[in-house]
Amino acid sequence: MATITILGAGYMGSALGVLAARCGHQVRLWGTWLDDDLVQPARRGEPHPRLKLRLPPGIQLYLAPELEPALRGSDAVVCAVNSDGVIPVMQRAVPHLPPRGPLLSVTKGFLADEQGRICRISDEVRRRFLEPAGIQRPWVHIGGPCKAMEVAREVATAVIYAAVSDDVVGLCAGWLEAPYYTITRSTDLPGVEACSAFKNAYATASGICDGLQLRGYPEMFNTKAMLFSQAVAEITRMVVALGGRSSTAAGVAGVGDLHVTAAAGRNRTYGEHVGRGEAPDQVAEQMRRTGELTEGYPALKTGWDLLLQQAEGGALSVSDFPLLQALHRIVYGNADVAETLLSVKVRG
Amino acid sequence: MATITILGAGYMGSALGVLAARCGHQVRLWGTWLDDDLVQPARRGEPHPRLKLRLPPGIQLYLAPELEPALRGSDAVVCAVNSDGVIPVMQRAVPHLPPRGPLLSVTKGFLADEQGRICRISDEVRRRFLEPAGIQRPWVHIGGPCKAMEVAREVATAVIYAAVSDDVVGLCAGWLEAPYYTITRSTDLPGVEACSAFKNAYATASGICDGLQLRGYPEMFNTKAMLFSQAVAEITRMVVALGGRSSTAAGVAGVGDLHVTAAAGRNRTYGEHVGRGEAPDQVAEQMRRTGELTEGYPALKTGWDLLLQQAEGGALSVSDFPLLQALHRIVYGNADVAETLLSVKVRG
Repeated sequence: MATITILGAGYMGSALGVLAARCGHQVRLWGTWLDDDLVQPARRGEPHPRLKLRLPPGIQLYLAPELEPALRGSDAVVCAVNSDGVIPVMQRAVPHLPPRGPLLSVTKGFLADEQGRICRISDEVRRRFLEPAGIQRPWVHIGGPCKAMEVAREVATAVIYAAVSDDVVGLCAGWLEAPYYTITRSTDLPGVEACSAFKNAYATASGICDGLQLRGYPEMFNTKAMLFSQAVAEITRMVVALGGRSSTAAGVAGVGDLHVTAAAGRNRTYGEHVGRGEAPDQVAEQMRRTGELTEGYPALKTGWDLLLQQAEGGALSVSDFPLLQALHRIVYGNADVAETLLSVKVRG
Repeated sequence: MATITILGAGYMGSALGVLAARCGHQVRLWGTWLDDDLVQPARRGEPHPRLKLRLPPGIQLYLAPELEPALRGSDAVVCAVNSDGVIPVMQRAVPHLPPRGPLLSVTKGFLADEQGRICRISDEVRRRFLEPAGIQRPWVHIGGPCKAMEVAREVATAVIYAAVSDDVVGLCAGWLEAPYYTITRSTDLPGVEACSAFKNAYATASGICDGLQLRGYPEMFNTKAMLFSQAVAEITRMVVALGGRSSTAAGVAGVGDLHVTAAAGRNRTYGEHVGRGEAPDQVAEQMRRTGELTEGYPALKTGWDLLLQQAEGGALSVSDFPLLQALHRIVYGNADVAETLLSVKVRG
């Protein structure tokens, strides 16, 4: 039995807490300064407002000011905030981190460094916080198709845990594997991180098609399938350019996670609003206000910047990413939605 | 402009006829002895009963006894019947085939030879009919995510044409490419044929999940995504064992076609009925009676037999195909649907 501290009490942090508690671990679920409305009701024994179920007794809840006791002596720390929250949360958490044990993360996205260069989250956290503090905690990224609501309800799920070293992946997977939660062990940290970030960007395409249908376009299952296939192709190219393996993109980390994200969830919903003709920035702002922030919106920007960065170095060619380009133009360039998306030529 | 004869006046044959006519070709759409109810109304200028639209004037309609005039002097012949119909239709058509020109096919599935060995359709037609008649027509298999209703309505679609030779693929693609119908040229005939057949088998998994939800199981987007990812992995293994390329399975032929089939259409519907607890053989029979035959039902049998065949030769291991095994056991072995499907362990 381990003591596991989870940073972030939203959908995924809480669902992982439920999973870990059911696996017999002591769970400390810490809510950020934005999570009071989630932690307070759960502390009173009411259903978690996002997961819509009562948390099991093995979970201790901590409010934002209680970060130090939440971290004290824990065996593993899970970063479960969104990509916007990683820097401010890690800034506060690092001084209180116990000296050893893995740092797991379900955060999906990229970060910009001080020069605006787009980096993988694990790299940036290590460079900015862990190395200066002399902390050597292995990073374990959790990817794969996993809606929090379903994990919390023991729906059959397959995920992938990735770290540089086999040993630490095995340790973490051993803690959290359950009959309904199958864990693939991987050493392809860059590949799985890239899949997790990009699938949010690409899943908006499926939502946009749904939105177009809602405003009178015919059914377009063919188009959605063609864009799905193109998304997989572009994610695969990016994964390989970042030092990952194409097999990672072909598995649960890429194909699987893109599938669930394009079929259900906030990024699809975001795309649907855009497809209906609403202003992309206003949809993002509106969703943020209701606590349903979509990672696809920032990922389309950081993903595009990363592509330009890679293209500058000669590792990739922008012309091999027509779908990313179309989505970026729609969301950040006010391009006509239907004309731009439906004219993407897919071959392969 | 070419003269193109299409054998089979169901969904896909008629939709290809509409496409070819719009591309300016002379189209002869021949209905089998089972298609009278489709051809007769279309001949009277009424909407095609499946496509629900009027066929353009460039299409000439032929009833079953008019096979010879339908084939006389045509530049290309398209086989657009289901896998059950290939042998009886080719038997009747071969004596009337013009001496040259490609034979295209949208038929998806496998055929058993006289010894019960499972073969690719292109191989079996060549061996059984073309070679004995001294006919050397190149075979072009059409794969990729393509619902007939949508092609007929000019919805953005990406397909793949595959033949042994580059030249013939280029010729056919040149005839039929349209702004809304993008054609990838491929020389991976075994790979694309295998993808087309297997996606129908695997798409039933998604339908089964939908059916389980309809009888009270919780939402299972995680499970559907995990099974989708596993289907891609198993299709890829099979493609490679049959001499195809893994990149074919990763593109529109595999990932793309599986996506559209799992999201919409008869094979998903078939799975949904099975997931709801109906008897698999009776669902297939009922769908056949209403003219909505599902290719997934026979493909699960031929696909499984093909796997055993490959495993016997040492090319594949049955244990690498847990999803195909589960689906085969459900559909042909009366195994418990939920227990069998939801216990498939997916890693990768």
